[in-house]
Amino acid sequence: MIIVMKPDAREDWVRAVIDRVEKEGLRPVLLSGTERKVIAVIGDERRVSEEAFSVLKGVERVMPVLKPYKLVSREFQPESSIVRCGGVAIGGKECVVMAGPCAVESEKQIIETALAVKAAGARILRGGAFKPRTGPYDFQGLQKKGLEYLQSAKKESGLPIVTEVVDPRDVPLVGDYADMFQIGTRNMQNFLLLREVGKTQKPVLLKRGMQSLYKEFLLAAEYILSEGNRNVVLCERGIRTFETHTRNTLDLNLVPAVKELSHLPIVVDPSHGTGRRGFVAAMSRAAIAAGADGLILEVHPAPDEALTDADQTISTIQFAALMKQLAAVADAVDRVLPSPSESVACG
Amino acid sequence: MIIVMKPDAREDWVRAVIDRVEKEGLRPVLLSGTERKVIAVIGDERRVSEEAFSVLKGVERVMPVLKPYKLVSREFQPESSIVRCGGVAIGGKECVVMAGPCAVESEKQIIETALAVKAAGARILRGGAFKPRTGPYDFQGLQKKGLEYLQSAKKESGLPIVTEVVDPRDVPLVGDYADMFQIGTRNMQNFLLLREVGKTQKPVLLKRGMQSLYKEFLLAAEYILSEGNRNVVLCERGIRTFETHTRNTLDLNLVPAVKELSHLPIVVDPSHGTGRRGFVAAMSRAAIAAGADGLILEVHPAPDEALTDADQTISTIQFAALMKQLAAVADAVDRVLPSPSESVACG
Amino acid sequence: MIIVMKPDAREDWVRAVIDRVEKEGLRPVLLSGTERKVIAVIGDERRVSEEAFSVLKGVERVMPVLKPYKLVSREFQPESSIVRCGGVAIGGKECVVMAGPCAVESEKQIIETALAVKAAGARILRGGAFKPRTGPYDFQGLQKKGLEYLQSAKKESGLPIVTEVVDPRDVPLVGDYADMFQIGTRNMQNFLLLREVGKTQKPVLLKRGMQSLYKEFLLAAEYILSEGNRNVVLCERGIRTFETHTRNTLDLNLVPAVKELSHLPIVVDPSHGTGRRGFVAAMSRAAIAAGADGLILEVHPAPDEALTDADQTISTIQFAALMKQLAAVADAVDRVLPSPSESVACG
Amino acid sequence: MIIVMKPDAREDWVRAVIDRVEKEGLRPVLLSGTERKVIAVIGDERRVSEEAFSVLKGVERVMPVLKPYKLVSREFQPESSIVRCGGVAIGGKECVVMAGPCAVESEKQIIETALAVKAAGARILRGGAFKPRTGPYDFQGLQKKGLEYLQSAKKESGLPIVTEVVDPRDVPLVGDYADMFQIGTRNMQNFLLLREVGKTQKPVLLKRGMQSLYKEFLLAAEYILSEGNRNVVLCERGIRTFETHTRNTLDLNLVPAVKELSHLPIVVDPSHGTGRRGFVAAMSRAAIAAGADGLILEVHPAPDEALTDADQTISTIQFAALMKQLAAVADAVDRVLPSPSESVACG
Repeated sequence: MIIVMKPDAREDWVRAVIDRVEKEGLRPVLLSGTERKVIAVIGDERRVSEEAFSVLKGVERVMPVLKPYKLVSREFQPESSIVRCGGVAIGGKECVVMAGPCAVESEKQIIETALAVKAAGARILRGGAFKPRTGPYDFQGLQKKGLEYLQSAKKESGLPIVTEVVDPRDVPLVGDYADMFQIGTRNMQNFLLLREVGKTQKPVLLKRGMQSLYKEFLLAAEYILSEGNRNVVLCERGIRTFETHTRNTLDLNLVPAVKELSHLPIVVDPSHGTGRRGFVAAMSRAAIAAGADGLILEVHPAPDEALTDADQTISTIQFAALMKQLAAVADAVDRVLPSPSESVACG
Repeated sequence: MIIVMKPDAREDWVRAVIDRVEKEGLRPVLLSGTERKVIAVIGDERRVSEEAFSVLKGVERVMPVLKPYKLVSREFQPESSIVRCGGVAIGGKECVVMAGPCAVESEKQIIETALAVKAAGARILRGGAFKPRTGPYDFQGLQKKGLEYLQSAKKESGLPIVTEVVDPRDVPLVGDYADMFQIGTRNMQNFLLLREVGKTQKPVLLKRGMQSLYKEFLLAAEYILSEGNRNVVLCERGIRTFETHTRNTLDLNLVPAVKELSHLPIVVDPSHGTGRRGFVAAMSRAAIAAGADGLILEVHPAPDEALTDADQTISTIQFAALMKQLAAVADAVDRVLPSPSESVACG
Repeated sequence: MIIVMKPDAREDWVRAVIDRVEKEGLRPVLLSGTERKVIAVIGDERRVSEEAFSVLKGVERVMPVLKPYKLVSREFQPESSIVRCGGVAIGGKECVVMAGPCAVESEKQIIETALAVKAAGARILRGGAFKPRTGPYDFQGLQKKGLEYLQSAKKESGLPIVTEVVDPRDVPLVGDYADMFQIGTRNMQNFLLLREVGKTQKPVLLKRGMQSLYKEFLLAAEYILSEGNRNVVLCERGIRTFETHTRNTLDLNLVPAVKELSHLPIVVDPSHGTGRRGFVAAMSRAAIAAGADGLILEVHPAPDEALTDADQTISTIQFAALMKQLAAVADAVDRVLPSPSESVACG
Repeated sequence: MIIVMKPDAREDWVRAVIDRVEKEGLRPVLLSGTERKVIAVIGDERRVSEEAFSVLKGVERVMPVLKPYKLVSREFQPESSIVRCGGVAIGGKECVVMAGPCAVESEKQIIETALAVKAAGARILRGGAFKPRTGPYDFQGLQKKGLEYLQSAKKESGLPIVTEVVDPRDVPLVGDYADMFQIGTRNMQNFLLLREVGKTQKPVLLKRGMQSLYKEFLLAAEYILSEGNRNVVLCERGIRTFETHTRNTLDLNLVPAVKELSHLPIVVDPSHGTGRRGFVAAMSRAAIAAGADGLILEVHPAPDEALTDADQTISTIQFAALMKQLAAVADAVDRVLPSPSESVACG
């Protein structure tokens, strides 16, 4: 920690800061610059709050030197983590595609989608049973019934399931059906929910808050790891900016940033990241080329009739075509992504 | 709802849109412009999603005409609401100041603060017992013990209590102690929590999400009203922008906007809205001058020793001085705000 | 300057950084922390770029200690500057209101406005002759003719003139007519234009770029001062955020920030800062209460017929009513603002 | 244009709006909805300002139906434009890479870079002679001398030159040396400069303003086309958001958006779009995968010694390695990008 004093800081104020540093069990080093005095603090600064110093008399600024997270950092664990979800490894050489409808609408719809996306190469089925919606009068999901339909689709297709949990009270219930919990963008800082899923050993797909700094995103993951669950997959899904032509601004810079800062896998959601069906293919290709470990995509057999997010959902036919493009891009960046034909051959 | 067709939309695509409008029980009116066809939809469009149309072939854009919220709108209720919290009326001629520490730290601290802010003219005591924190290793509040200390402070000072609830499971517990629930910025779209407090009749202080549009903020309030609880007070606390010199950008434009769009009272939080102790007085005055119905301020007997938010907390002495300034500003805009001396006279 | 090394930085990399610091004529101090090595740099760091160090092997981060601007800072000049514009002092006890139409449209319009705003207490007349417009097909201002009409209005009313200059080639022309140059938001980083007005001694009203950090805003002012012209008045006019209900988000936090960081006066433009006529009065009051040294307001005799910015322009009648409110608020914060009646008495 | 009246709009107010529409030579169609009256306007609305109506009594909102730009739109010209720069076609099947230092520093440096990037497959040389810098004390470029060095590098390498012009007065001078003008992010709305380059026939690389909406970006290009110069190449270079870990947020969503809205080519600048050397390769691959027509990259023989933008500049060796990766990605998305070996073979 570096404490910068104001140019007019009095001797006794500087002294008081030094005393406080020592009181915290840290070692102060005083540096007298040309215009200001600076106090460098030696020791593990994470144990004290910056504010303990920033409010002292004569202090202009406090600058942390260490990162505020630990378990998620690549310094703590240099080798990349591989997270396993129902037999599928996320974070390895294969780019894993998760696909399915925004919301589970009926048993028929979800089974039909599961079989179609599997045939096209998807490895995990997504589908929302509990839907957080901006307005109270919007469709809120089929809830428990939705989970049961997901189970049927899993049985029919063999695909593991990722689905959102929104209520800390529902973690056991959703855990009975899901192979992977999804934490949505609005809940990235719902710390109770993070702690609840952190107490399980089930993998967690953690979506970035639409207003979250990289640092806050990694701290949210740290909440889960600090409870003992290390199976976290990060997900970039677009941030809110001044641009309104797209629903969100997909921030692919996060992909190389996470690779540098953390050992956790990162996948990308181009459906929410663009909000426009016509942009999903381009941004899916871009995400793979940037080094993402996978994608999560909204796919529906008849997207024009989808009850939610129809604007950004592609059809199962478009999805199959996209998977072929993605296989080529993955190959170009030395990754693997199963293409439709191969999957059909296997199936 | 207005549906704009693409310039090259075929006749049968236009026909399909018209059919869909009629199928939804609404009335379409076709307008042939110079470059595009437009279909105006007559009827209560809130019952159908924009996306039902935006995804149809040849549709370029769908523009809603009605607002998505109803119960909170000034059209629904033209006269301003007055929300009562333990005998204090919010939304009337008086500007109501809520003050207290960010977090309850000890019984002594909260009682001392309560008595001091009361003497200076505060009408409601704030203090956090459950603290949502960005990092898992930060102080998370005294929890139940904090609620008990708040109760002592209420008994000693006579001030009603506003305190944050973060877990839907805790609504009954917090409700036993609080005169008013606070929903924090990270929970503005925690819809389960909104519904839980909506099922009570206790007043709710709803803070704007740091990334929320005015529309989303009003829809969050609509969640609470739609459950039957009409006692909602809105609170602007700053939004996240590119500026980093301040913790948030306080958006006072929201004050006249809420006065136009809604009948609910609105108060302002300049502590979080600036994140800097030295800016709190200026922005408190500004908020009152803009027409806010009150303020919520972080005040501590010894702010330099506060465990949380020390950077933005003012001392009880600074608070008393500020209240005198605020009384003068309130008077200038034809509002009332009790000044220290008067309160002392009453007390 | 503080240089933080990566945890795995080799001895010889640290050595190389130290050598480079010395080569720049600065003094390095090596601090060995628990997890990282840190090199503190003693001397005037403004002479070297941060990037000279951030790119060296093993460097994690470089943190500046000094501020990048000098002449505009309050450290450089502790007492507040007063800028004089045609006999009017900006930055003193009086809050100075500049008012007039967005664009000069005709001689009659600008004279009529000038007389009306003067009667209501305005001290400076604003009006655009050169208009930067987002689209090439929009009205671009009356240009030289507009300047001549402004001169007539000045002659009739006695009010000094502030008007925008957009082209460095036009600085002499506009300078012949204007008492104060206005630099618009889109030109805040038009460094050539800043240098040109910096070479004159005429006061400059510098509007904040809609995307500019406080630091960049002050550096833009530094450009002008560094050329020798110290007569700069800063102007907050709203920034671009995710909110779309208002044209911009008026960032009043900047007012106390400028008062702390700089000696220059700051005024506020609530017309652009809200983009909504109905919000102008509330935010004008707020700006004065926050400590602004004045306002710049769009006023038109018949705003509904204004060729530009009609949405945010108030009528001369509304302006007179607002000035009475503002006089009361100014009085409450120990400032002076001439109210209509007084002005009429004088006139 | 669609004019939505307030729910309480009086009959005569509605009448007045209709009259005004007719006065403008447009045809009004009145629609009486369940809660509001709406007036649809038939005719070319681009000729009238929205504000002419939004300010009329009883009007709640005005929604445009047509897009504000014309010449740049894909509706106006369905086939994609190909812009030629010194024999290189931008917008065709080949992805064109422009590379070179941020600033021209010496004749040796620029010639060495030119030869190296050419050998690696670059088709155009970039290099700044006039540098707009945030602070007045930063290096401002070699100016005319820089242009001369660029000419030497062109002669030696055969690569055409793109370089920034910042002053409308310098358009003829820069035009004597450059094969393509660059308009930087801070000048995207410097309308005088846009008009000046619009009067030439030289290609223009127009960078998106860091705060600009897609609509404003296309309108800036419209300025150039409206003067007669149709040789415009758009460039995404990152926008300013709340995230600070990266210098900007690279908005690749713009690539598919431009492909839909406009016929102009679009290239991407991952150097400014990330501000971090370590992220440039990932985002370059992503841009090509998203469908960009090319890249512009900061490359330096010894980036650690670069005078400007060292943080985001890659070395000529890293550049050659990157070009091989890009050739593979281009191939995967059915585009062509010359790889180092091929170029060497040709050269």
